[in-house]
Amino acid sequence: MTKPLIQIALDQTSLPSALEVARRVENFVDIIEVGTILAFADGMNAVSTLRQLHPDHILVCDMKTTDGGAILARMAYEAGADWMTVSAAAHIATIGACKKVADEFNGEIQIEIYGNWTMEDAKAWVDLGITQAIYHRSRDAELAGVGWTEADIEKMRQLSELGLALSITGGIVPQDIHLFEGIKAKAFIAGRALAGETGQETAEALKTEINRFWG
Amino acid sequence: MTKPLIQIALDQTSLPSALEVARRVENFVDIIEVGTILAFADGMNAVSTLRQLHPDHILVCDMKTTDGGAILARMAYEAGADWMTVSAAAHIATIGACKKVADEFNGEIQIEIYGNWTMEDAKAWVDLGITQAIYHRSRDAELAGVGWTEADIEKMRQLSELGLALSITGGIVPQDIHLFEGIKAKAFIAGRALAGETGQETAEALKTEINRFWG
Repeated sequence: MTKPLIQIALDQTSLPSALEVARRVENFVDIIEVGTILAFADGMNAVSTLRQLHPDHILVCDMKTTDGGAILARMAYEAGADWMTVSAAAHIATIGACKKVADEFNGEIQIEIYGNWTMEDAKAWVDLGITQAIYHRSRDAELAGVGWTEADIEKMRQLSELGLALSITGGIVPQDIHLFEGIKAKAFIAGRALAGETGQETAEALKTEINRFWG
Repeated sequence: MTKPLIQIALDQTSLPSALEVARRVENFVDIIEVGTILAFADGMNAVSTLRQLHPDHILVCDMKTTDGGAILARMAYEAGADWMTVSAAAHIATIGACKKVADEFNGEIQIEIYGNWTMEDAKAWVDLGITQAIYHRSRDAELAGVGWTEADIEKMRQLSELGLALSITGGIVPQDIHLFEGIKAKAFIAGRALAGETGQETAEALKTEINRFWG
């Protein structure tokens, strides 16, 4: 199992602010994500600008595509994204249309897991050739002050066993990393934790934990 | 029951193309929608430009918001949208956050019905004070050459009875309008059917049918 990568989620509402953060973190993150907020704020210009300024990073366009998949996918990959996201709530035909465009560009699809999804849905994604999904910590848990639940970890194991490499997000801190040992973790995603003043420290602490459990 | 309105969905991948269509149709549509494709292509600039050029139309921003609701809602309303869309797959807390921002701006929320949603979910939307939802024709039906199914119409009646006014979309043609008699129809949405050369004819035929059934 390859080691999980570190991903910065850029959800600034202005491109200059996002570019500033990207410049600050580029040496300690592997993946730069144009968050949905930034993509709606600035459009595909945000993707193409980050592509040009950070040619060696993996670039994700977080559209959470729900419909019009072929067109949205083409826009994202043409702007320079390597990976784009598709909502778990999209019709399977939409997910398939995105995958088809992804294949044209040698890009990848990540399923954004939201809503009332089932393991049957997940099998359908895998059957389409999709190899990645993004798992968010349960919001109810987060609001109730509860950490990652056993239910979360169990679902993540099952998705992992189906063949999906998971990008994991939701208030990720270095002390949480051990919870995900044995799960096929593609990346850990953070926003403010990496963008802020202690971003480099945080990234290094994450990498220390990653090396312990995916050594 | 007030008469259903006519809405143009702008899903062009460039703003100039969208502006050209909007200019062409403005006299025979009530609502201008910045489609998800246009919103991702050009960002909030698309919303603010259309707001300025069409000050008297209802303006919808079709974000299909799934997360980060408070920030996305604020961006849409600040750019000039009257209504914005939120995915049925969003956590109820996200939907609630969008509604809270909508109230600040005297704007409205429309739930984009996608994925594995239930009538319990719909009741929860209504409990939050949401009064609109967007119903898409079943894609499987459309691909199989089947029109609107009884299952669709039945779900639409139930949503209508719960208190949701439905914007109806999915290859809408004037000959379909009679199917929706008795349903609380907020608007009929079309893209190419209204944007093309016979757009005005189509709008007039839709209005004739609307007047027959919601006279």
